[in-house]
Order: sequence, then structure tokens, then C-alpha cells
Amino acid sequence: MDLVIGIDIGGTKTKIGLVDETGKCHEKTFFRTKEFPNLDAYLDKIKATSDELLAQFGKDANIIGCGIGAPNASSKNGTIENASNLVWKGSVPLVKLLKQRMDTDMPIRIMNDASAAALGEMLFGGAKNMTDFIVITLGTGFGAGIVANGQLIDGYDGFAGELGHVDMTMGDGRLTGLGVKGGLEAYVSATGLKRTVMYMQSKYLVDSRFRSIAYNDLHGEDITQAAEEGDEIALKAFDYTARIMAQALANFTAFTQPEAFILMGGLTNSGKWIMTPLEKYFNGFLLDVYKGKVKLLHSSMEGKTAAICGAAALIWENQKKKIV
Amino acid sequence: MDLVIGIDIGGTKTKIGLVDETGKCHEKTFFRTKEFPNLDAYLDKIKATSDELLAQFGKDANIIGCGIGAPNASSKNGTIENASNLVWKGSVPLVKLLKQRMDTDMPIRIMNDASAAALGEMLFGGAKNMTDFIVITLGTGFGAGIVANGQLIDGYDGFAGELGHVDMTMGDGRLTGLGVKGGLEAYVSATGLKRTVMYMQSKYLVDSRFRSIAYNDLHGEDITQAAEEGDEIALKAFDYTARIMAQALANFTAFTQPEAFILMGGLTNSGKWIMTPLEKYFNGFLLDVYKGKVKLLHSSMEGKTAAICGAAALIWENQKKKIV
Repeated sequence: MDLVIGIDIGGTKTKIGLVDETGKCHEKTFFRTKEFPNLDAYLDKIKATSDELLAQFGKDANIIGCGIGAPNASSKNGTIENASNLVWKGSVPLVKLLKQRMDTDMPIRIMNDASAAALGEMLFGGAKNMTDFIVITLGTGFGAGIVANGQLIDGYDGFAGELGHVDMTMGDGRLTGLGVKGGLEAYVSATGLKRTVMYMQSKYLVDSRFRSIAYNDLHGEDITQAAEEGDEIALKAFDYTARIMAQALANFTAFTQPEAFILMGGLTNSGKWIMTPLEKYFNGFLLDVYKGKVKLLHSSMEGKTAAICGAAALIWENQKKKIV
Repeated sequence: MDLVIGIDIGGTKTKIGLVDETGKCHEKTFFRTKEFPNLDAYLDKIKATSDELLAQFGKDANIIGCGIGAPNASSKNGTIENASNLVWKGSVPLVKLLKQRMDTDMPIRIMNDASAAALGEMLFGGAKNMTDFIVITLGTGFGAGIVANGQLIDGYDGFAGELGHVDMTMGDGRLTGLGVKGGLEAYVSATGLKRTVMYMQSKYLVDSRFRSIAYNDLHGEDITQAAEEGDEIALKAFDYTARIMAQALANFTAFTQPEAFILMGGLTNSGKWIMTPLEKYFNGFLLDVYKGKVKLLHSSMEGKTAAICGAAALIWENQKKKIV
């Protein structure tokens, strides 16, 4: 069976799996990225893990390529560039190094993780019949993978879709991790939601369970739980986050006019607390010409293998082009 | 000689010309759009004007198609939809009506005027070797034509690129003509600049020639002239406009990472007064990963035939695809 090695490199975990042409992940495992601060040791670990998965799978595997999703990856250069959540600094030519380490001529491709997720949705998920859509990943940060005219938008240099760093406030708002004033992910992300819980405690005097929880002890699930219990600070924080997100998605609609936004990642696990106000505000912010035409969808690939399948899609996409 | 009829429909003028495959406009003329509030009469006028131009050109013309640039045009539907600057209301199926009126089977295509301008730049102008760029038209409003992966971005329904209506202020700013709060074109456009001259008179007490000119008597050229003379209100207005424009272009860069922005339209005639502060602010707002990589260019097609050639590019683009 033809298989692709899919690798999702995250700040916390590196996930690896073997993915067939239908998007099914046959074997998968993970290890902790931070345990391999030395790049050589990390490459060895990738190779060893791939070999283990192949051994587990059995004899009839034919590996046709390797796809990698990673933060701050440039698909055009095959590199990871100054990723703030990864331990290796500067420009890492990962594709070249991994080809050497694996001693292989098979295609290896790397891409921004949100862009890889968008490819995965197009090949295997809810965007199979769409030519214009945007995947939004809401985790520690805010990521975006943009598809227009049926093609992923890479940009001149491979760094399109850094939508967590668009300014929403004319330079007068919260700082992002990259020093952008008023940048979107300072508001709309798991971290942004935590910051908003702090802000609401500054703005209002109502009692709340958060009055006795320090910032560093605060987790996304706590905020969802508090909302379930009717905590006013939690409710206000979700409403505020959803409103800014709705404004941002309305702005993005004016750019490429997507048929749908496909949402995935930790913050979407808050379910109705984010989605109900998001939907309410979103159509209000849209220009008339777009109203009622843009869907807000959850990823149908949500789960432990979504990121691996997205990474594998980088290779399967090219394979399918050859067949057509 | 093979020729395309290029038509640029504006709120004030309708320009028509005959354009060859190199982008040269051989015959051209215009008439006043508002003199034809009746759509039937307008279609007759288009047909009569085209016939006149052909008669002027002589015997060897072979018309291979007709391209139209217009505000609020949907390329996918062949319509103009609720254009606020045009007299015909609702959805106008212009392509269909014009085919009937001209009694022809030749291809007729319509597109948003800024998108047509982007096609024109790609085929005939400064973007001949670019695959990722954005044309910005700064006139009464703010228009954008987006090219990524060497293709124009149309959007799901043909209404991509409405960047004059992205909100820059979290819903807390000036209203645009379409009722968007904090929309970009309320700041960055010829009209936006006039509004900013008013705002600066509210904010500061310095003397200025504008203290004795009413809003309705104020023209873009006056503001450029005042800046030349060192008028502080004019200088502050240009700086303010350029700063917001720089922020917007930095945001747009995070979307499709263009190689260049190509600027055209009335406001760019203010030359250094807008460009010098724009360039200063722009690189400051860009994320590190983009710094020094994004060019700010003037259109090389600026002039009386640029819009006609852009419209004609809709047909020449398809023609060239057939040859390749």
C-alpha cells in the first residue's frame, strides 16, 4: 500500500503517522519536541520513529513521500524560520537535513501548519468540493491557511496567512508575541481569551471564580467551565473574544471572499460559548454583498490525527495532480 | 489586426477604446455615464460608440471580444450589483444585455475595475513577471485587485478584494458609504483625505488656508498645493492618511504576502506627500519575516488609457492562455 509519512511539529509535541490516499492514518505516535533541543538528535528521533511505525505496519508499505507541518515554515525554501515556539533558532533547512538523514530521494515537503491543515481539509475533509475557503486554527496562537481558486495561497516567499498578526486597532492595542500592537492573536486565541479574563476583571467589579485564580494557573477549560456555571466574567470574555473574531473574519471575507471558514484547535472546544456569539456578530459585520453567503464550519477532521493528515496532504496533493 | 473593445464604466465617465495584444490603445473616446440613466439608451450608446471607433480605425480590425471594468461587478455572474456610484439600481446583467444589443457571439467579460486594473498590470504593465501582487486604486474610494499564484483572486461569488471596507478600528471609527464603521476608505481615499483635513482642524488650532474653505469646496489638488506651501493641517492630514494606509498594507501583506503593491488613482498624484510618509511607516509596521521584501510601486500604466487597457486585459488574458 502507498503511504505518506505525515509529521506535525508543534512546540509541545511532534506527531508522526502513516497516511494512505483516503486520508486514513494507519499508525501514529508522538514524542515531546522539547526533549530534543539538539537538532541532530531531533532528526535521528524522526528517522527512528518513522522506521518503528513502518515496522509496526508490516511488509506491504510503499512510502512515497514525507509531508511536514510546522510553525513559521516556508514551503518555498523548505525551512523553519525563527519560530518563537520552537527551540531551534534562526533558519532551519529542515527539508534538506531530513533528506540527508533519511538518505532518500523521495519528495519531502514542509509547510506552515495551518496551510497544511487547509490542504488536509481540501483533500480529506469538509472542503472537498470548495475552491475558496480559509482554515482558522485557534490554539496558543491564531493561524490561517487560505485557499483561493482551488489553490493554497503561499505568498511571494512562502509566508502568506500570518493573520494572527494583523492589527485590529490602528496600532493602539495589546502586544502580540511578535511585538505587533493590536494584533489579532492577542485577542483571539487561547492566550487571548486568558488575557481578556484579566481585562474583564479590571473593567468590572462583579464577583467571579477568577478573582482567586492567578493568570499562570488559568486554563482554557476553566473558562468554559465557568461559563457553564454562569460566571459573568467568563461570559463577558467569550462575548468580547467572539466579537473581535467576527470583525476579523468579516475583514478576511472582503479579501478573498471564501465560501466558508473552517475552525479548528483548542479554543473551538469551548463550543457554543464562542460559536453562538460569533455567529450572531459575524453576519452583522459582513458587507451586504456577502451576507448569508459565508459559512462558519467546524473541522470534520478534528481529533488526534488531523494535523498528521494535513501534513501528509502535502504529498498526496501532488500525487493526485500527477494522476489527473 | 486583432483588437479588443475595452470599456471602463465609472460613475462620471464611460471610457471606450480598441486595444491590441501588446496593450496599445489605438482609438479611444468617452461619454458621460450620467447622461444615460436609462439602461437601454446606455447600451445603445455603447454600441454606437464602438461602431464609431471601428470606423475610425479602418478596415483591417478583427474584434475578438469585449472586456468591461466596473464598480461592484461580479465576474462570475456577469453583473453589476447595487453599485452606489452608478445610476442603475439592483442587479444589472450587463454581459447578457450587451451580447443581445451587439448581436454577437464574441466573448464579453466584466470584472471589478480594480481587478481589471490588476490584470492589465500583469499583462501589459509593471507586474509582467510577478505572480503575487496587489493593485490599489485610490480614487473617490479605495479599490483592490489581488493576484496570488499568478491568478486573480475572484472569491466564491466574484466579490473578492473589497478592501476599502475592512474595519481598522474594532468598529469604533468613521463610517464608509456602505455603513462600515472604521472602514479603510473612510480614511485612505481622496474623500478620506478631505475628511482628515476636517479632523485636523478639529484637533489643532494652528492657522491654515483650509480654515476659510468649506468641505464641499475642497479638492484633492488644494491639499497637495497647501502641503507644497508648508500648511501644517495639510501636512498632518497626509501623514495621518499615510500612516493608516501603511498599517493597512502591512495587514494585507500578512494575508497573501505580495511581492509588491502597485498604486494608482487620484490620491497617488499627491506624490511625495503621500509616498514619503507611507514608505517610512510601512516597513515599521511589517512583521520581521516580511521586512524589506515588499515593494511599493507606482503604476507604469497611469494615464488616460490605463483603465481601458485593464478592461481589455480580461479578453487578452484568455486569448494568451489558448495560445500557450
